[in-house]
Amino acid sequence: MKPLKNKLIRLVKRPVGFPSEDTWEYDFETIDELCDGEIIIQNLYISVDPAMRGWMNEVKSYIKPIEIGDVMRAGSIGKIIYSKNKLFKEGDFVSGWGGVQKYCRTNSKSVIKIKAEINDLPKHLGSLGMTGMTAYFGILEVAKIRQGETVLVSAAAGSVGSIAGQIAKIKGCKVIGIAGGKGKCDYVKNELGFDGCIDYKNESVTRSIRRECPEGIDVFFDNVGGTILDSALIFINRNARVVVCGAISQYNSTSIVGPKNYLSLLVNRAQMIGMVVFDYKERYQHASEEIIGWIESGKLKSKEDIYFGLDNFYNVFQKLFNGNKQGKLILKV
Amino acid sequence: MKPLKNKLIRLVKRPVGFPSEDTWEYDFETIDELCDGEIIIQNLYISVDPAMRGWMNEVKSYIKPIEIGDVMRAGSIGKIIYSKNKLFKEGDFVSGWGGVQKYCRTNSKSVIKIKAEINDLPKHLGSLGMTGMTAYFGILEVAKIRQGETVLVSAAAGSVGSIAGQIAKIKGCKVIGIAGGKGKCDYVKNELGFDGCIDYKNESVTRSIRRECPEGIDVFFDNVGGTILDSALIFINRNARVVVCGAISQYNSTSIVGPKNYLSLLVNRAQMIGMVVFDYKERYQHASEEIIGWIESGKLKSKEDIYFGLDNFYNVFQKLFNGNKQGKLILKV
Repeated sequence: MKPLKNKLIRLVKRPVGFPSEDTWEYDFETIDELCDGEIIIQNLYISVDPAMRGWMNEVKSYIKPIEIGDVMRAGSIGKIIYSKNKLFKEGDFVSGWGGVQKYCRTNSKSVIKIKAEINDLPKHLGSLGMTGMTAYFGILEVAKIRQGETVLVSAAAGSVGSIAGQIAKIKGCKVIGIAGGKGKCDYVKNELGFDGCIDYKNESVTRSIRRECPEGIDVFFDNVGGTILDSALIFINRNARVVVCGAISQYNSTSIVGPKNYLSLLVNRAQMIGMVVFDYKERYQHASEEIIGWIESGKLKSKEDIYFGLDNFYNVFQKLFNGNKQGKLILKV
Repeated sequence: MKPLKNKLIRLVKRPVGFPSEDTWEYDFETIDELCDGEIIIQNLYISVDPAMRGWMNEVKSYIKPIEIGDVMRAGSIGKIIYSKNKLFKEGDFVSGWGGVQKYCRTNSKSVIKIKAEINDLPKHLGSLGMTGMTAYFGILEVAKIRQGETVLVSAAAGSVGSIAGQIAKIKGCKVIGIAGGKGKCDYVKNELGFDGCIDYKNESVTRSIRRECPEGIDVFFDNVGGTILDSALIFINRNARVVVCGAISQYNSTSIVGPKNYLSLLVNRAQMIGMVVFDYKERYQHASEEIIGWIESGKLKSKEDIYFGLDNFYNVFQKLFNGNKQGKLILKV
């Protein structure tokens, strides 16, 4: 193989609060040799996710923290350009943990071949990727939604929330979203087909939940935490399920705010349930097929918000938290 | 019937924070007539429970608030002294919502006949009453404990915690308690047979949980809330269950503190589950029989902390919250 010049982004310090730009550094390296079993992936699309913020903290979690000096961890879709592994050939499209870099040299252990047209590749980071899987298993397996139930979804215009809510609609639930700003709320109602959407930036969430969910909430699918979680807890019904999928309002906080209304769980015999999508790995294939069916029949809309160039990473990362995006954030390399 | 002079305690105002003595007023009334279907119970033992504090708040809960002017609600054990109801005869011992008063005139709807020696009557407010039922269904049905698991119980010397922990021991769990003061901790370890007990008044709860539960916590049976709940959340294992049975540290608080470590539920795919004992009403009988078996075989100790006289009500009520008691608080009339 001819030597490749890789451009990569390293984590160089542990952020406290919201990460500043110097949390990362650009670097270059040369890849000029492959061992047996290894492949080189040319990253085409890099997934930018709220979970990244957690991976930077040095705490025990569902996954090891990114070490200082390591390439910034990210899911990615790419094309194999060199292979010394029988299972992969050059030209294969794959998904895996490619990291925020141009090329990824890997032993290919957690790399999965995907069959897709080149135009559909971004979906494999969105509705058919970790995002879609989180929504699918979160709403179906963790929340165990039933027809006719009222489902409230926070970050409803976001990557996971938008899909979770649409699946709940497909399954015959009444679905109300929470999103920030008129544009997003219109999108959630008019394009995604939710029954209603609360604009947390411009109305009282508590008053609006009372208005939109007069029959109470059976399932709260929460990606946000903080005061929105507290407002939702006021209105949960008996045997309600609160899925703790994420807490984007808290990820950059140096002192987490706990749900002061948690005793509503007691009164209502309700549950707050944590989830991590990796637990459902064996069933991703089945879920993907079902989601593809919904997309093809027009029942589910998948929206990717794609930005260009590794140099744009910090700009795109900020969009995770400033609300300035719609759908799944992706960096095109 | 000859007219009866009833002495009773009425709720006369809604407390904010810790109830002052003038939250209640003593009163007298004459009972001189019974309608068909009614009975008069002479209260012998009155149950004094943390839940009373919640019933005084004018909020939607699992039970209607006590109205201002009403007799203070309480579970009780008594003897029927007049009956115009075919199902009950004079001399029967019954349990029900007798209230904090000498006599209770009732249509007998929620009154249950109990078979017991007079000396065993207090147990029917403790290990065989709401307290025991809460512990039994909380630890077996809600927490779903399994042999070999590590179970942490807060308020371990208290009425519910002491029984929940003992049942977990009977079922083959490792059980660690949390209680306040050396006396209580000794009692929990030496008399109740817990594997360890953390003295929250004299040691760091977080450090002590790390020491006592090096393998983490599979079940946290929480009666306390607040910082103790937060400490426990740090150490929960994958798929752990946190039973929200109560939150005595918060009941008199004007601003509830939520569990800031709740995202540990996400990381550990754990659940926080609320419970109300009334949901298991149909199975109280079966549970009582099993608990009686454990008591008779010496496997379970039931401790009642009995005080005398209606005039003592406020004194005993305070003991619920100042920690100055051991086991089930009961007022003997």
